[in-house]
Amino acid sequence: MKSIEQTIRIPYEKMKSEFFRILLKFGFTEVKAEKCAEIFTMNSLDGVNSHGLNRFPRFIKNIMEGYVKPEAVPSITQKIGSIEQWNGNLGPGPLNAEFATERSMELALINGIGIATLSNTNHWMRAGTYGWQAAKKGFVLICWTNTCQNMPAWGASDPRIGNNPLVIAVPYEDEAIVLDFAMSQYSYGKLDAVKKEGHKLPYPGGFNKDGKLSNDPEEILESWRVLPVGYWKGSGLSVLLDILATILSGGLSTHEIESCNTEHSVSQVFIAINIKMLNNFPSINNSINKIISDLHNSTPIDPANKIRYPGENVLQLRNENMEKGISVNKLAWERLLQL
Amino acid sequence: MKSIEQTIRIPYEKMKSEFFRILLKFGFTEVKAEKCAEIFTMNSLDGVNSHGLNRFPRFIKNIMEGYVKPEAVPSITQKIGSIEQWNGNLGPGPLNAEFATERSMELALINGIGIATLSNTNHWMRAGTYGWQAAKKGFVLICWTNTCQNMPAWGASDPRIGNNPLVIAVPYEDEAIVLDFAMSQYSYGKLDAVKKEGHKLPYPGGFNKDGKLSNDPEEILESWRVLPVGYWKGSGLSVLLDILATILSGGLSTHEIESCNTEHSVSQVFIAINIKMLNNFPSINNSINKIISDLHNSTPIDPANKIRYPGENVLQLRNENMEKGISVNKLAWERLLQL
Repeated sequence: MKSIEQTIRIPYEKMKSEFFRILLKFGFTEVKAEKCAEIFTMNSLDGVNSHGLNRFPRFIKNIMEGYVKPEAVPSITQKIGSIEQWNGNLGPGPLNAEFATERSMELALINGIGIATLSNTNHWMRAGTYGWQAAKKGFVLICWTNTCQNMPAWGASDPRIGNNPLVIAVPYEDEAIVLDFAMSQYSYGKLDAVKKEGHKLPYPGGFNKDGKLSNDPEEILESWRVLPVGYWKGSGLSVLLDILATILSGGLSTHEIESCNTEHSVSQVFIAINIKMLNNFPSINNSINKIISDLHNSTPIDPANKIRYPGENVLQLRNENMEKGISVNKLAWERLLQL
Repeated sequence: MKSIEQTIRIPYEKMKSEFFRILLKFGFTEVKAEKCAEIFTMNSLDGVNSHGLNRFPRFIKNIMEGYVKPEAVPSITQKIGSIEQWNGNLGPGPLNAEFATERSMELALINGIGIATLSNTNHWMRAGTYGWQAAKKGFVLICWTNTCQNMPAWGASDPRIGNNPLVIAVPYEDEAIVLDFAMSQYSYGKLDAVKKEGHKLPYPGGFNKDGKLSNDPEEILESWRVLPVGYWKGSGLSVLLDILATILSGGLSTHEIESCNTEHSVSQVFIAINIKMLNNFPSINNSINKIISDLHNSTPIDPANKIRYPGENVLQLRNENMEKGISVNKLAWERLLQL
């Protein structure tokens, strides 16, 4: 077990150049390979290897299977006022999502708020990527995706709804506050990681096959009955996010997306708000500062665990990984080098 | 105990006319009293007495204390493209929120999406009210409010964040799908009701004063340590909703709002989307139908509890209460008659 989990550190540029090399081999142009490599590397840099290094081989597999088309780019299907619908044409999910984020910001430059949607796109990897992208450029971003059927609705035993990650991002101090929030209490990646460590979850993460709430990741991975965030509340939010993604994009809804093994052609929504247009813009950073400062003044239950805002830990980890090299699983890295 | 909880049924028109009578007495014009009485009555009709009949005496108390000003109407502070900021001038929360919902829809008529915000407004009672309002007119609505500090951030013991209710509403079959979703797992109203019944919560709803997760409503009401939806996730969402409400409205943030006993001057955001402008509008109801139909096909854990969409139970209850009279607490009704 120990050797499987051995951790090494890889410099940012080294990891990015490996992704770049492989993407060129699989039909990406230099420009697209550069951008896509950057997104995957940033995800690992920010500590999200499950959507960085560890996920990359599956991304390549999806290209080989034809679910992800390296040459495809989004095409516009509709433009009405501040709303644009784009067909992702099954292009690489991260590139499509990056593009739609840019489009939503362009639209927000005109009237203060804009929506770009994607139908027929692919897994965008880490949801937070697009929040950081927009917030670093000074925009508020609210975006979400639907997914394959990977979670039972509250009260049900069969997975018919998606964990539909939602992002809310706000510019703050030249960086960002980014909430990246899937509708399951724990991601399948997290369950897998905790299982490998031989640990239990701190709180119940799903039902076992006997229908009992469980904090044993192995039991939950076996039952596929992950718990919606807040029981009935996250279940309801998942349904609404799927409905909105479907109707605003004109794309597929969760129940129409193929099984999670071959998930593709998902629907996404990107809403950008141009806060620079507001009269109160000059005071906004100060307002956020005061909110964060009050939050930081919370009395922690565990004195060693100061209360933080969403994304605060990411910044620390990012700086540490940039300085010392990105912390990754040794076998995962060796597997990459063979691609 | 039994007699305190005695339930009677009051016809819709009777309840509304009592609210109307009392509102006139406390300085409302006929037009505003009519609208405000309708909102309070609808809340009870939909089974939400905690923000209908049971809350009305406190609303009147807030008027007498000067926190709610019956004569005040919103005034515009900024209009930029599809964004309008309004000052609620401490007017009645439900009327201000109804007005801002209308404004967001007017803006969405022009460019497909619009935002109206309110600073300096008051408790809007039931969040879902405004979702039903917009969706019945054919608009998607996303709206939320901040609140006083009524919940500890995840990992903290002192209440510094709000339960900041969020609404997402979508038109469906001449009615609506409405998610109405506070960031605490249970509302204080719910804790109070379960305590009165002498029951326990089905799932932990907070920490007791010894810092242990508890499903005893009495313990949680004593500690004021309600649980955020999904632990860290609902805590983060609460912080982001407060930041957005503050910066988009230019109003107060949760930590600046007075204590929950005298809560006033909250901030709210209303985002409307005009789906009728979309080319795919003719197929939207059918798309939603298929999503709901798939959800309904879920295998219920308890065969007696069919899986429903957010708002589905409300419609049933509304029809039942309209037919038989609104089910209310007898003492609460008698208390109203004395106002």
